[in-house]
Amino acid sequence: MLLHLSTWIEVEDYLTRSQGLIIPIGSTEQHGPTGLIGTDAICAEAIARGVGDVTHALVAPTINVGMALHHTAFPGSVSLRPSTLILVISDYLTCWVRSGFSKFFFINGHGGNISTLKAAFAETYAVLADRNIANADQVQCRLANWFTCSSVYKLAKELYAHEEGSHATPSEVAVTQYLYPDAIKQATLASEVASGHPTYGAIDFRRRYPDGRMGSNPALATPEHGKQFYDLAVQELSHAYLEFLNQT
Amino acid sequence: MLLHLSTWIEVEDYLTRSQGLIIPIGSTEQHGPTGLIGTDAICAEAIARGVGDVTHALVAPTINVGMALHHTAFPGSVSLRPSTLILVISDYLTCWVRSGFSKFFFINGHGGNISTLKAAFAETYAVLADRNIANADQVQCRLANWFTCSSVYKLAKELYAHEEGSHATPSEVAVTQYLYPDAIKQATLASEVASGHPTYGAIDFRRRYPDGRMGSNPALATPEHGKQFYDLAVQELSHAYLEFLNQT
Amino acid sequence: MLLHLSTWIEVEDYLTRSQGLIIPIGSTEQHGPTGLIGTDAICAEAIARGVGDVTHALVAPTINVGMALHHTAFPGSVSLRPSTLILVISDYLTCWVRSGFSKFFFINGHGGNISTLKAAFAETYAVLADRNIANADQVQCRLANWFTCSSVYKLAKELYAHEEGSHATPSEVAVTQYLYPDAIKQATLASEVASGHPTYGAIDFRRRYPDGRMGSNPALATPEHGKQFYDLAVQELSHAYLEFLNQT
Amino acid sequence: MLLHLSTWIEVEDYLTRSQGLIIPIGSTEQHGPTGLIGTDAICAEAIARGVGDVTHALVAPTINVGMALHHTAFPGSVSLRPSTLILVISDYLTCWVRSGFSKFFFINGHGGNISTLKAAFAETYAVLADRNIANADQVQCRLANWFTCSSVYKLAKELYAHEEGSHATPSEVAVTQYLYPDAIKQATLASEVASGHPTYGAIDFRRRYPDGRMGSNPALATPEHGKQFYDLAVQELSHAYLEFLNQT
Amino acid sequence: MLLHLSTWIEVEDYLTRSQGLIIPIGSTEQHGPTGLIGTDAICAEAIARGVGDVTHALVAPTINVGMALHHTAFPGSVSLRPSTLILVISDYLTCWVRSGFSKFFFINGHGGNISTLKAAFAETYAVLADRNIANADQVQCRLANWFTCSSVYKLAKELYAHEEGSHATPSEVAVTQYLYPDAIKQATLASEVASGHPTYGAIDFRRRYPDGRMGSNPALATPEHGKQFYDLAVQELSHAYLEFLNQT
Amino acid sequence: MLLHLSTWIEVEDYLTRSQGLIIPIGSTEQHGPTGLIGTDAICAEAIARGVGDVTHALVAPTINVGMALHHTAFPGSVSLRPSTLILVISDYLTCWVRSGFSKFFFINGHGGNISTLKAAFAETYAVLADRNIANADQVQCRLANWFTCSSVYKLAKELYAHEEGSHATPSEVAVTQYLYPDAIKQATLASEVASGHPTYGAIDFRRRYPDGRMGSNPALATPEHGKQFYDLAVQELSHAYLEFLNQT
Repeated sequence: MLLHLSTWIEVEDYLTRSQGLIIPIGSTEQHGPTGLIGTDAICAEAIARGVGDVTHALVAPTINVGMALHHTAFPGSVSLRPSTLILVISDYLTCWVRSGFSKFFFINGHGGNISTLKAAFAETYAVLADRNIANADQVQCRLANWFTCSSVYKLAKELYAHEEGSHATPSEVAVTQYLYPDAIKQATLASEVASGHPTYGAIDFRRRYPDGRMGSNPALATPEHGKQFYDLAVQELSHAYLEFLNQT
Repeated sequence: MLLHLSTWIEVEDYLTRSQGLIIPIGSTEQHGPTGLIGTDAICAEAIARGVGDVTHALVAPTINVGMALHHTAFPGSVSLRPSTLILVISDYLTCWVRSGFSKFFFINGHGGNISTLKAAFAETYAVLADRNIANADQVQCRLANWFTCSSVYKLAKELYAHEEGSHATPSEVAVTQYLYPDAIKQATLASEVASGHPTYGAIDFRRRYPDGRMGSNPALATPEHGKQFYDLAVQELSHAYLEFLNQT
Repeated sequence: MLLHLSTWIEVEDYLTRSQGLIIPIGSTEQHGPTGLIGTDAICAEAIARGVGDVTHALVAPTINVGMALHHTAFPGSVSLRPSTLILVISDYLTCWVRSGFSKFFFINGHGGNISTLKAAFAETYAVLADRNIANADQVQCRLANWFTCSSVYKLAKELYAHEEGSHATPSEVAVTQYLYPDAIKQATLASEVASGHPTYGAIDFRRRYPDGRMGSNPALATPEHGKQFYDLAVQELSHAYLEFLNQT
Repeated sequence: MLLHLSTWIEVEDYLTRSQGLIIPIGSTEQHGPTGLIGTDAICAEAIARGVGDVTHALVAPTINVGMALHHTAFPGSVSLRPSTLILVISDYLTCWVRSGFSKFFFINGHGGNISTLKAAFAETYAVLADRNIANADQVQCRLANWFTCSSVYKLAKELYAHEEGSHATPSEVAVTQYLYPDAIKQATLASEVASGHPTYGAIDFRRRYPDGRMGSNPALATPEHGKQFYDLAVQELSHAYLEFLNQT
Repeated sequence: MLLHLSTWIEVEDYLTRSQGLIIPIGSTEQHGPTGLIGTDAICAEAIARGVGDVTHALVAPTINVGMALHHTAFPGSVSLRPSTLILVISDYLTCWVRSGFSKFFFINGHGGNISTLKAAFAETYAVLADRNIANADQVQCRLANWFTCSSVYKLAKELYAHEEGSHATPSEVAVTQYLYPDAIKQATLASEVASGHPTYGAIDFRRRYPDGRMGSNPALATPEHGKQFYDLAVQELSHAYLEFLNQT
Repeated sequence: MLLHLSTWIEVEDYLTRSQGLIIPIGSTEQHGPTGLIGTDAICAEAIARGVGDVTHALVAPTINVGMALHHTAFPGSVSLRPSTLILVISDYLTCWVRSGFSKFFFINGHGGNISTLKAAFAETYAVLADRNIANADQVQCRLANWFTCSSVYKLAKELYAHEEGSHATPSEVAVTQYLYPDAIKQATLASEVASGHPTYGAIDFRRRYPDGRMGSNPALATPEHGKQFYDLAVQELSHAYLEFLNQT
């Protein structure tokens, strides 16, 4: 059940059965010479909707721009500042908690979002308390990265070993190939790929990772792999979502 | 050409030809008993992509949550605060101006966004100047509401006369029916519909407009009307975008 | 009744009779070679006080600096950023709502304020709710631009036709001439006046409108016209204020 | 020379002779049973204009709402939060420094503004440096309280001794009586007046100072005294302004 | 009793006896060629702990970076912006007021903190009210500068007369010598020392005060003087703290 | 070399040899019935100073209040909000980068700081770029948690196995016992300790972890263990700091 394809009356009805909401969050940033700029949002959205189907949960619209400041020296990349993303999360949750939701399950497609999201959750709990919202102390946020699902991680290692890398990975590229077969990009990738550097500012990042990849070989990706990753992530996160719902 | 389905290398190439970017912006808010909560984002996104196809312009991911605070007493509705939306716009444009974009064409699906977007544009011009970004003084933002296109407005009046209303309108509902025929909702609408009240806070709004409609009869909408509206909006806004690009 | 010339005891008494407050808001920005930099604040203040006299309403001190970022490449012009003006409005109203006021009627003298004020009203309703202020959901803000009064607009068209323009207009200059006959300025105006350009950042604005006028011929203004405009605006806005007070 | 009664061309010309600007700042807050709510803004504005006349300096519009949070439990009182006032000052000065001004002389009518203004000056110097404004490191702000002029203080002690008090003082009330003889208020003042309490939050303040006065007896004020105070303040601050201008 | 060396259970117990908390606040900024960068934090911390010992009060961790923007052109100096320091104070006090504390006694070691702290107190009272914290209107903050204790001031004048100066003073240097005898620095000080200039931005400050001293001769300091200052400050502030606690 | 015990001239000299700065950051929060509220700041500070001694690096004053919102339902605990901590970091680094520092090594004592610090680093890189600070793109921040040093972790597991837990751990308590033998606290700990719950808001946290411990048995700590942990952490982080300095 997708929030944007529902009416408020359907949501009112849903809230009598469940206070859970799944929120996909991705990023819009360079993913190497062949990866889609929307990779992280695309993966998070599709997997979140898959989880919603399996668990009969309501799925919110995707937060498609996240915290990707370090990628912004590559054209087309866009990012919120951490302080802005914190406000965005806090604005969203103030609305939804007032609606009656209390269990927020974020399905995340971008490693760079993790820290800011955790900070945002902490800030939001305090903001909800400030605002004297009923049941503010019942609100729970959970962060679930599809790419760190153990089943996903295991498959990526089997298929790609160290060529999985850590950005513009074949696994995430594979999922986008499965979902958008018409948008599979071809390019000759340099055989050498930068790897292992720490991440600082945007200009520094581009100096260190000149084509945008971080140790990955996305040429190994196939749509068939993508389906496998998608299925594993949906299965594992559906289980995680239900467990989260059932926890006090 | 969709930003999220492009690579950074394709964007780099695009920037040698054009500095224009189309940004769809909608809202996620109640649209009456039968309208989709995502109506404004759905319409803006589809029309923006249509305009992108016609004009070979790059289309950014949709800003799917806008300024809809007055709707937030209806469950599922969500909003950024104006001050947050201003930061979001300013964060986005700082990134894209640094990338080389300078002409931003916002295709908007929600009347409630208009004021905040205009405020955000003004603030962003100042912020870009503060940040000493090269060519900051060349940056231009344009706001284009699909629902105020003269061709759209004319058709809505012809088809629905005063029953078009001003929120949860048959015209916008029709566009969503055309785009999502499987999500057409049935419900008996009260024959009396509230109309003409001023808009203040969220609780007040729900008191005045108990089912969420503002003077509209969305039961008049059909998917066929939706296609007509879509076609008119794409045509008129494509012309407007090209004109904007060509202006100094 | 002017707030700044009243005592708190008089205000306490007033609040037993009315919860209405009139707030003049203008701007401090260039108005062409002959227009006063304070034009918008001067007009809004005088007309608001006139309305206060007619309706026995309390009139607040004038917000004399508004949102005029696009004029700030002309010396002497000054502006709040939209995000700052939103905070100013929200600070003011938090105080006055706690005092017992609930009906805020903004008499505005500057087109550039409109969007930010509307955004500020929306933000303020949310902030008041956050702060759990008693009767926050009864608070109402209304924006009334003296220059868009139908009677004013009609007279301006009769007197000046297309030479009214849209900034540094003869109608607003006339009102300042009526109010400050000693400050009528003489200068030879270029016969050609820039017109019809869109508004972006401050530097761009000055390039497009080199003397600051936007399509206007303020040389047509006379103090006598000014009195006519003043009288019409006071009459029409007094009616509007009373209507606002009486609405639930 | 008043900024709001000048044109931008006159300001451009003024800047060839001087980079100084006088900014009156007051407050809009209770001043006891007989003092005007606008007392602090009225006094600051009139004295600033007097100084402008004597020194041929440009005088900006009055900041008529300042930092008066502790007075806001008395109806009609209004205040900016310190953090908002800091933004207001920083917004103003960014505009005016870009115009070419660099010497800002604040004539202040309210003790409660002092700390926040000093904080605002410090913040503004940093913000101007961040924004890479030419000559940011030449910008100077000076705070001049009319009520702490030594000549004013001496006269107040002579006329009123300890009955001058520290808020709703006869000296400031006298100035308003001189300026607004038609707004002289009559009320029987309690013979006992609270005095010497520390200042904390607004509710606490009203508990401690039930009629709003702080140790003062404003019944001693006369318009003639007001003229004396006005003349002394104008003279002393004119001297201070010229000295400020001449300092490197 | 030091907060950082206590357990939460000890604090819970303390709160049954007292709602008072002593908060040392200093700065980390240049103190001339021989003064320690931490001078202000060192002095405030030691004196606050002395006061805590005498009065059996709980002493919080030291705020060791304050508002010292004007010193930041000297390497190693660091400052919060006033707006940030306001947020820091408001965050701290929100936590501690929710814990049950209501009397906050700030022992301050840096003149540059005074204005921002006063602004922060005012803002915090408002923020606590917004957050509907129980007993928010009982919260009291008191600012106590050790260097303006009358006994300290008197001794400094006796020992150093005009060579006390106003920054990098022998009195504060003496206290640090008493506390950190191993960190006494030797350097030849210029016989001429800048004095009496107003304070503006950081670059301007360093131009005016090239070695960082403001009219002082810290070569006069001795550890023995330091002990005297320390003892006087502890004695006088202990008295002030107890008086504060006992006031309603 | 401690920044607060240095002069600006010593820092200027240091900067000719190194651009590195070590910044200890802890927290001030409950650590169970026997752990010190200052545990995290105490450990971070001591270890950072140890690393400074070994590596001849400059060590900044400790940030002793961090992000510990979830602990604030226990009396005495205090926290910055994530958005405030981001501003604090960005203020600090703006000053120090302008001084000439570029390599910031944060030695952290609190798990709850990690996410916000990472967010703060990302935001700071962007802010430094906005402010056009020379060499902004050379700035590097590194986060080093003493408690996740592999040598520390290994010893903790050897000594305490699963009784190490994750908050108020015997290892951190041991370090404070080594450093403050006079502040070793005795209390009977419940034999059952809560463990494994997720972390949400402050009230929820206290419900789940009623005595503040998270799965730990701090009664196992001894000062001798503390010395071992301290030595290991200093050794491992000294190596890490030097490696960081030497990296481009």
